[in-house]
Amino acid sequence: MTSTITTAAGTTDNVGGLDLGPAVALSCRECGNRVDLGPYYACSECFGPLEVSYEFTLAREELRRAIERGPQNIWRYAPLLPVPAGIADTPNINPGCTKLVRADNLARELGLKRLWVKDDSGNPTHSFKDRVVAVALAAARELGFSVLACPSTGNLANAVAAAAARAGIRSVVLIPSNLEQQKILTTAAYGGTLVAVEGNYDDINRLAGEIAAEQDDWAFVNVNVRPYYAEGSKTLAYEVAEQLGWRLPQQVVVPIASGAQLVKIDKGFTELGNLGLVEPTPYRVFGAQATGCAPVAHAFKDGHDTVRPVRPDTIAKSLAIGNPADGPYVLDTVRRTGGAIEDVSDDEVIEGIKLLARTEGIFAETAGGVTVATLRKLLATGQLDPEAETVIFNTGDGLKTLDAIADVVGPTATIAPTLKAFDAAGLA
Amino acid sequence: MTSTITTAAGTTDNVGGLDLGPAVALSCRECGNRVDLGPYYACSECFGPLEVSYEFTLAREELRRAIERGPQNIWRYAPLLPVPAGIADTPNINPGCTKLVRADNLARELGLKRLWVKDDSGNPTHSFKDRVVAVALAAARELGFSVLACPSTGNLANAVAAAAARAGIRSVVLIPSNLEQQKILTTAAYGGTLVAVEGNYDDINRLAGEIAAEQDDWAFVNVNVRPYYAEGSKTLAYEVAEQLGWRLPQQVVVPIASGAQLVKIDKGFTELGNLGLVEPTPYRVFGAQATGCAPVAHAFKDGHDTVRPVRPDTIAKSLAIGNPADGPYVLDTVRRTGGAIEDVSDDEVIEGIKLLARTEGIFAETAGGVTVATLRKLLATGQLDPEAETVIFNTGDGLKTLDAIADVVGPTATIAPTLKAFDAAGLA
Ligand SMILES: Cc1ncc(COP(=O)(O)O)c(C=O)c1O
Ligand SMILES: Cc1ncc(COP(=O)(O)O)c(C=O)c1O
Ligand SMILES: [Zn+2]
Ligand SMILES: [Zn+2]
Repeated sequence: MTSTITTAAGTTDNVGGLDLGPAVALSCRECGNRVDLGPYYACSECFGPLEVSYEFTLAREELRRAIERGPQNIWRYAPLLPVPAGIADTPNINPGCTKLVRADNLARELGLKRLWVKDDSGNPTHSFKDRVVAVALAAARELGFSVLACPSTGNLANAVAAAAARAGIRSVVLIPSNLEQQKILTTAAYGGTLVAVEGNYDDINRLAGEIAAEQDDWAFVNVNVRPYYAEGSKTLAYEVAEQLGWRLPQQVVVPIASGAQLVKIDKGFTELGNLGLVEPTPYRVFGAQATGCAPVAHAFKDGHDTVRPVRPDTIAKSLAIGNPADGPYVLDTVRRTGGAIEDVSDDEVIEGIKLLARTEGIFAETAGGVTVATLRKLLATGQLDPEAETVIFNTGDGLKTLDAIADVVGPTATIAPTLKAFDAAGLA
Repeated sequence: MTSTITTAAGTTDNVGGLDLGPAVALSCRECGNRVDLGPYYACSECFGPLEVSYEFTLAREELRRAIERGPQNIWRYAPLLPVPAGIADTPNINPGCTKLVRADNLARELGLKRLWVKDDSGNPTHSFKDRVVAVALAAARELGFSVLACPSTGNLANAVAAAAARAGIRSVVLIPSNLEQQKILTTAAYGGTLVAVEGNYDDINRLAGEIAAEQDDWAFVNVNVRPYYAEGSKTLAYEVAEQLGWRLPQQVVVPIASGAQLVKIDKGFTELGNLGLVEPTPYRVFGAQATGCAPVAHAFKDGHDTVRPVRPDTIAKSLAIGNPADGPYVLDTVRRTGGAIEDVSDDEVIEGIKLLARTEGIFAETAGGVTVATLRKLLATGQLDPEAETVIFNTGDGLKTLDAIADVVGPTATIAPTLKAFDAAGLA
């Protein structure tokens, strides 16, 4: 897990007293070129995406003790993240340490032996985005940025606005002007700058890149500090392993939008094995998409190495990225571990939401519905082993996507306010 | 803290192998009459409300170790609750261990020295109701009930439906038929029996009592198992004390609907002091109401011992109980501890929601807005000591009461999707 310095560009020692913990460099995922830590996200050689490289110095036992003594949030894993050592003491919304729920009821219905739901709806703004934003914010401050920004259609907007408010720094969030009122309100509540842009997500994303190039003290979490941001999802893997008693599950099912989360969960498991914190037992990574936006599932099924962009059309809006940046890496990961990628219809997504709520009392957003429905499909098609211990990731909260179920759930009966009416309704 | 058996009715030993942990009897809060543990809620002598009495047997150090070794949820306090010892191992939505957030930004704005927010929006269904329902469910199962039920207008409905789903038992939730669509959906999602009743909350509440008398295997959490249910709120006090390093705060501000939560927080602090888990340092309990439903605040200000019912008219719907069952006990508690009760206008509630979100990144429901606004008013009127360490309770989530802020927050600007438009808008 130690890294050597290989770039022609010179040293990768932390410059200017930069404290990003065990992070020592950024390296290109395509050509391997290494550069100093900094606000960079594309390789100067090949324009490939940059990724954080680490030099972990704590010994296994020391590391494990440090983690177990740490706070009940992602900062217990600070020794494995690109964040300053004292991060837990700065004002933070402190995501993480969400529940790993033993899902016996759901397992029974699906015919699975042992199933867990990692329930990230318990995060401060109720999605896994709090994890990535927290790491992006920590790095952004260390890199000298003074504004936290993002283009978003929902969960990320909430997470950025909340994290910046608590940190006492300014946020600028760009959203499509036709976004549901509900999502506008939940972001606007925090009082940052909220810019409604007359365009679709692609337009906003492009605009964010242009603004980032102009405003050099603005950290767009998913643009110019994306390498740090993405590392936040490793904490999902760390938590699952620790919650299982420092061991790895045999199968995981992860929803895919850009694909970053899936790739980083694999990275997290691999690191834990390399560091000796868990036995490096084999695990298979499965991906979940909605059929209305399934470019990675299609590439997987067609045996391609690259992903052909699509125009999204699904109720699973938080997963509706038609041109996923990490698509090829997702394909690598899934194929290397012996997993698969499936996609499910919007009707199946709704059934997935209802199934999880009914069996385990967990009300997921559409992304969670995609994951549950995909789990079911992978089992039905024999791609997932019902005997192997499985973890699925519920990454968001049903309260944010109520529209998806508005037409399919409702009162069992409507009655007059009398015992007679109640008895007559046959509900007892 | 040990209790002696005083009822004429005979023994209060656990009957029929009933395991409700340290609970040994129910006792009348009015006349002190004691009865066996069972599905009772009103005194057979005077119709006063019954309350759980305990016999705590673990020594201080043993108790503290048991708690600190316990799970990260309310069951770590099982030795202090009316629940079976093995409760943590039964299927549960496991509420509790929510964040105690150091609120320096808010403290600075208000001129307070040290302020904490106990943020119960982090519970599984995002309100403190998960705590009381979890305890009610545990007791209901032990008492042999087979259905979990409630009348509710929102948070309680969510909590009951979710907890029952996970426990694999039937739920029956009664709601007013004119409830907001949003609250209907979040309850209906769990797939229990949801009965829309053509009437207001008082009508439903009455109907629930009638059904409870007829269906003897239905546990209405806030009716026939209310003594157990209410004890769940003690866990808020336990957690605050433990999170502060086993000590008590000097001031707390608690929202009031029925008043049960406020009374039980005091009970929890008192128990910890009696058991030697904390120094029994003095603390003052403050109550918060919305002016549109402030019967307890009015009684407090008028120097009355009893509460005159009102017809609620406020946006803080989760606090809109016009005839609060625990009103007199709230008055006792607040007066005994040297606190006060204040009420705030709906406009102040909205300002409270915005203030907490902007300063701490916590998006509260209207009940939280009431509490923050009351904190501000108590400070402004000199009733709360700005030098004393203070904890306020945020008991619910802003996602559930979006309507309250729909007219007052929104995008800062709406622009065309170009850098030129962005620059022209003066947002940089
Ligand atoms: C709820 C939820 N789940 C999953 C994802 C997928 O994340 P990624 O883009 O890392 O694949 C997103 C991302 O937008 C999301 O909002
Ligand atoms: C969010 C919220 N806060 C506070 C309360 C007040 O609780 P109590 O009835 O115990 O006073 C309620 C109860 O309905 C609630 O839903
Ligand atoms: Zn490169
Ligand atoms: Zn009595």
